[in-house]
Amino acid sequence: MQTSIYHAEHEAFRKSVRAFLAKEVVPHFPDWEAAGCVPHEVYQKLGDLGMLGLRVPVEYGGGGEDGFLYSSVWSEECSRAGVSLGGAATHMNLVIPYILRQGTEEQKRRWLPDMAAGRRMGAIAMTEPGTGSDLAGIRTTARLEGGHWVLSGGKTFITGGINADLVVVVARTSEHADRRVGLSLLVVNADSEGFGRGRNLEKIGLKATDTAELFFDDVAVPADHLLGEEGQAFRYLAHNLVQERLGIALGSQVSAEKALRITVSYVKDRTAFGRPVSSFQNTKFELASCHVEVTAGRALLDQAMRAHEIGELTAAEASTVKVYCTETQNRVIDRCLQLHGGYGFMREYEIARMYTDSRISRIYGGTNEVQRVIIAKSLGL
Amino acid sequence: MQTSIYHAEHEAFRKSVRAFLAKEVVPHFPDWEAAGCVPHEVYQKLGDLGMLGLRVPVEYGGGGEDGFLYSSVWSEECSRAGVSLGGAATHMNLVIPYILRQGTEEQKRRWLPDMAAGRRMGAIAMTEPGTGSDLAGIRTTARLEGGHWVLSGGKTFITGGINADLVVVVARTSEHADRRVGLSLLVVNADSEGFGRGRNLEKIGLKATDTAELFFDDVAVPADHLLGEEGQAFRYLAHNLVQERLGIALGSQVSAEKALRITVSYVKDRTAFGRPVSSFQNTKFELASCHVEVTAGRALLDQAMRAHEIGELTAAEASTVKVYCTETQNRVIDRCLQLHGGYGFMREYEIARMYTDSRISRIYGGTNEVQRVIIAKSLGL
Amino acid sequence: MQTSIYHAEHEAFRKSVRAFLAKEVVPHFPDWEAAGCVPHEVYQKLGDLGMLGLRVPVEYGGGGEDGFLYSSVWSEECSRAGVSLGGAATHMNLVIPYILRQGTEEQKRRWLPDMAAGRRMGAIAMTEPGTGSDLAGIRTTARLEGGHWVLSGGKTFITGGINADLVVVVARTSEHADRRVGLSLLVVNADSEGFGRGRNLEKIGLKATDTAELFFDDVAVPADHLLGEEGQAFRYLAHNLVQERLGIALGSQVSAEKALRITVSYVKDRTAFGRPVSSFQNTKFELASCHVEVTAGRALLDQAMRAHEIGELTAAEASTVKVYCTETQNRVIDRCLQLHGGYGFMREYEIARMYTDSRISRIYGGTNEVQRVIIAKSLGL
Amino acid sequence: MQTSIYHAEHEAFRKSVRAFLAKEVVPHFPDWEAAGCVPHEVYQKLGDLGMLGLRVPVEYGGGGEDGFLYSSVWSEECSRAGVSLGGAATHMNLVIPYILRQGTEEQKRRWLPDMAAGRRMGAIAMTEPGTGSDLAGIRTTARLEGGHWVLSGGKTFITGGINADLVVVVARTSEHADRRVGLSLLVVNADSEGFGRGRNLEKIGLKATDTAELFFDDVAVPADHLLGEEGQAFRYLAHNLVQERLGIALGSQVSAEKALRITVSYVKDRTAFGRPVSSFQNTKFELASCHVEVTAGRALLDQAMRAHEIGELTAAEASTVKVYCTETQNRVIDRCLQLHGGYGFMREYEIARMYTDSRISRIYGGTNEVQRVIIAKSLGL
Repeated sequence: MQTSIYHAEHEAFRKSVRAFLAKEVVPHFPDWEAAGCVPHEVYQKLGDLGMLGLRVPVEYGGGGEDGFLYSSVWSEECSRAGVSLGGAATHMNLVIPYILRQGTEEQKRRWLPDMAAGRRMGAIAMTEPGTGSDLAGIRTTARLEGGHWVLSGGKTFITGGINADLVVVVARTSEHADRRVGLSLLVVNADSEGFGRGRNLEKIGLKATDTAELFFDDVAVPADHLLGEEGQAFRYLAHNLVQERLGIALGSQVSAEKALRITVSYVKDRTAFGRPVSSFQNTKFELASCHVEVTAGRALLDQAMRAHEIGELTAAEASTVKVYCTETQNRVIDRCLQLHGGYGFMREYEIARMYTDSRISRIYGGTNEVQRVIIAKSLGL
Repeated sequence: MQTSIYHAEHEAFRKSVRAFLAKEVVPHFPDWEAAGCVPHEVYQKLGDLGMLGLRVPVEYGGGGEDGFLYSSVWSEECSRAGVSLGGAATHMNLVIPYILRQGTEEQKRRWLPDMAAGRRMGAIAMTEPGTGSDLAGIRTTARLEGGHWVLSGGKTFITGGINADLVVVVARTSEHADRRVGLSLLVVNADSEGFGRGRNLEKIGLKATDTAELFFDDVAVPADHLLGEEGQAFRYLAHNLVQERLGIALGSQVSAEKALRITVSYVKDRTAFGRPVSSFQNTKFELASCHVEVTAGRALLDQAMRAHEIGELTAAEASTVKVYCTETQNRVIDRCLQLHGGYGFMREYEIARMYTDSRISRIYGGTNEVQRVIIAKSLGL
Repeated sequence: MQTSIYHAEHEAFRKSVRAFLAKEVVPHFPDWEAAGCVPHEVYQKLGDLGMLGLRVPVEYGGGGEDGFLYSSVWSEECSRAGVSLGGAATHMNLVIPYILRQGTEEQKRRWLPDMAAGRRMGAIAMTEPGTGSDLAGIRTTARLEGGHWVLSGGKTFITGGINADLVVVVARTSEHADRRVGLSLLVVNADSEGFGRGRNLEKIGLKATDTAELFFDDVAVPADHLLGEEGQAFRYLAHNLVQERLGIALGSQVSAEKALRITVSYVKDRTAFGRPVSSFQNTKFELASCHVEVTAGRALLDQAMRAHEIGELTAAEASTVKVYCTETQNRVIDRCLQLHGGYGFMREYEIARMYTDSRISRIYGGTNEVQRVIIAKSLGL
Repeated sequence: MQTSIYHAEHEAFRKSVRAFLAKEVVPHFPDWEAAGCVPHEVYQKLGDLGMLGLRVPVEYGGGGEDGFLYSSVWSEECSRAGVSLGGAATHMNLVIPYILRQGTEEQKRRWLPDMAAGRRMGAIAMTEPGTGSDLAGIRTTARLEGGHWVLSGGKTFITGGINADLVVVVARTSEHADRRVGLSLLVVNADSEGFGRGRNLEKIGLKATDTAELFFDDVAVPADHLLGEEGQAFRYLAHNLVQERLGIALGSQVSAEKALRITVSYVKDRTAFGRPVSSFQNTKFELASCHVEVTAGRALLDQAMRAHEIGELTAAEASTVKVYCTETQNRVIDRCLQLHGGYGFMREYEIARMYTDSRISRIYGGTNEVQRVIIAKSLGL
């Protein structure tokens, strides 16, 4: 009953993504997982193929394409290939859009060509130790001194933080009673003095994605590295969260669909007690239940993506979709893993890796508790 | 993010339904619940207003309208008004469509005008004691003898059975190894000799809907009361089940949406421990969770309704939507009732009646276990 | 692996309870359900048999027995017989204990003989419209005037309120900043001037138990009808809640065990699709899952009952057991009902009545939300 | 309300275990996790301390202690220390008991002293690729030829397989229509010709426990390495499964209790949105719900352990406890992880490691689906 939300150009793009992943990513992915990081030169290959800068206008070295659907295709194909490149996704879907939307003409010319080419990778540094999903709690500060912002503080859980060349830092540039006011975005070069990276944090999943602590010890950031207006970061971030959450929902939905697909196939191949695992009624009912939830997720997601394409997806709607798709993903993968028996615990089986990778989806992009606060508010509660 | 599936004519229809329910149904409904039945003359009023025969062509005394959306409007408005008229719904959505689709020209002329006018009400008798959702288990038989079908057997759980004037009976007219073969549809006049009704079964909910056991003791049914071809009932029934299940899903979805709406309003009005119930985080999170599930249900249902409008909804898709919407309905109503505290147990509160009314939705139209069998089959399991 | 918590005397008592229920209750129960109330004379029969006054000392006309286990037997046997007598349970397990514990010698002699004999039935009036489980919100007041307490206010959800001859009313007798202070217990004769009963509230279940609104319009209550010390009601009530909650847990546990037992038997007898319902793996797994939860509930309950027998069950432990047993009961009954198919919706099947009866258990005796507050506090949160 | 099942000697043992773990295990554990294996010499230290051979009679070099409670203490202390030594547990709780119970006097003298000392470690090889929890599907065979059993086949998921010196192999020694008949236990020296080990399987959790594939290519096993009678392995295995499953339940229960404990402490320390995480009602309710389930699990487990101490725990009861405790463990850890926010995804936080470690508990020792089959059978289904 589903009608595709994609057009011919998206399907063409899909083909080239698929070929690229098969050739340049899949064979090396286990090594990158072991290393906890993707080599920086992979990003240049992605840049060469025009993927990183797809949405960057032609005058800044990009593809000049428009819209969320291309990144959906990317996300779907990564999931299909069983790989996850969190650094690239952040660069494409979060950092570049900030510069496109809030950057001055001069800033765009300065940064975008390198970013589209994958020569310089971006990261976004919001979360601080102890603040979690709460922007109002940010304690990193920057004060203007002699034409520079002097930046001090620490960030954690920064996706792509190890590989990042440019870090968009959310810092408090003035004090207000309302703690959401007075935050600004500063673009920090990774070779600045006083900038340091902590360990690549060891996670239970998403092992090829580098996640770092970052330290800023009186880093001098040129005044013209301020992105957008001073004090307006909360607004910029809030605006972007809709798309970020929709993107997480999409990744989760695609992952749930894949878990179901590979498990349907697995239970047909395996036998237990002398019969195909698929022949047990418990297997059938478990997978039928997963199918029901996944189908509803796809309907909800498509509806949201259509609304987002025309700029009408609200924050509460994005939260709703994020909660539904991530919770369904986790439930479905758990049930699918169980149907794999002992193999479900072995990393060589994709369902095992999906289990550990997916656990973050209910947490990042704002925990699902934060999403529920947003949804409840929209219900007038 | 939702776009309406209704057009202007549906909204006009909605207005007249709403007025009718407010005037002719709501004030009397508690009496009908106490009686376990709607008075037959109510159906004539429904007929006079053109509701029963909406889909019946003009030449047979109907409105000549088309499509599932009108009955959706009806269902939504009944739910909004807090009433449930199972007999009328069966008549409109199940019995009349059988006659329209399988009836001969002569049969249509014979029965439809009275049915559209509400002078004669129809019921459909499938389930037998001990067979439940399993058509293959039907043991009621009919054999052709001297120009009549001689019908014998018993049926149970027949919605509208007390008020019915015409009963479409599923009977076995020939024996086959494949037990789904050899079933036929016979239209039985309620004044036939040998036809009897058992008690109006006492249910835990849907109390104004009569539900009966019916007995057929060598009832002579005229040969031309055979509906469609002999032995083809399984096919006819299967075809209709898609729409029946979609209808149940719709009713459940509308009911879940209503439960959420009245509970949001309830928790704002009530206080506990000196604060509005809505101010507790548990209340907010419970309702936010309900909202997430209900929103997904609406997206899924709308997708299914659009597919059904163009005749493309498959049996497995209808099962998927039925499972999702009915299970969500039950979960949501349970959580909403809990937020009502002790009032949730009192029949004067609508949530209490919704709780008991809704428990059947996971069972009728084929239990959700049967739906899972169908879904699993569609997954190749 | 379970060892019985009962002794020989309890088993003897069980026998007489079982005989009494079979003869005096079961045959009339459907009529009482239809009437919404048990006839008052039934209580006298219960009194004659020594059941109501079992715990009342011999000098006040009772049996002089001790302990919670007798009421457990009573509760188990009522459940086994499929009957529920909420008024009697309140009288025995809540009202009489208050008088035993807080009553003066004179009060005991005044009230207990009639109460043990079933000539006068008691009820306890805590809940008010709008306060729910929150004692601190009580607005009914009593002021001492000329040797009488003048009582004014309204109560709701009063179990046994229609049949009650003596009502223990929780009223505010002095004002304090801490709203839990200043509450007292007054024993009100039902024939007092100014005392009124509202409707017998129509519930979705427990239909033979009368539940009433009570009104007090300047009722003059003799000074010596104060139970315990003035202003100490909160403490008395809190103390009794442990036993009340344990009693609810017990009733729920017994009910869940019964639901499982009758469903195991049902699925063996019924066929679907030409096979016993018990032969489907889904049936087996559903019932096995129910068995797991129910077995854990029994272990928890037995542990709690042993602790309570020696006076060591804490409030938070009672809350824990109440939450576990009532939520398990509701889940188990829901799953068992589903396995009954359409019959599960018919009141003539016990599972259907259990479904509606049991919904209150997560609400009364303090909603499970209130229990969670208590538990969380005991965890230091 | 809980009374301890342990005596003074168990508490003394607990002390020495705790000291040993703190000194010899905890500091090295991260290295062992990285290596995927515990160094063999660690087992000798465990042997020196008398832990491995605790239940081995003094005449075979052991401690001569009795009963399941010592291994419970071991399991509890490992969990408390946040370490998991699957190889040692298998050796102590599965392999040694087989030799004690089924071994001849000569076999006991041959193997037990080295095993008690940790010089030789045992493993048990049941599962084969493709058979999972189904013993009847075993295809590894051994035929008696010239005074030796010639053993051929492959095994997988063998806990301790990399470190094992002696492997108890379940092999088919004769063919029967009933596939559970004809299985025997053979003790294979790891230095036998034809014996090979595959990779140390990479798991998502329990990373310090080696898990191997083992290959037997016409391995000549001396006739007197047959353990017990020929063809009786199924019976021996079934008997031991009760204790194995109870052991898994214990480990899961202890782990759930720990998850709750560390999370209660975590939420008090952390702040979000300017408040302690513990101050949010959602936090309180989540942890209260976890506490309810965990408390029921402890009551159930204690009951089962008491029954097992006196030899009365049935197979179905062990399955019931295994299902309850492992499913509760997984649910509780998942909820606790969520309350950790982003830190819950970081391996340096114990809850993250518990999340991945615990996922196997619903699978090993017989999947919970297999347990449900056993339970359903005991219900007569």
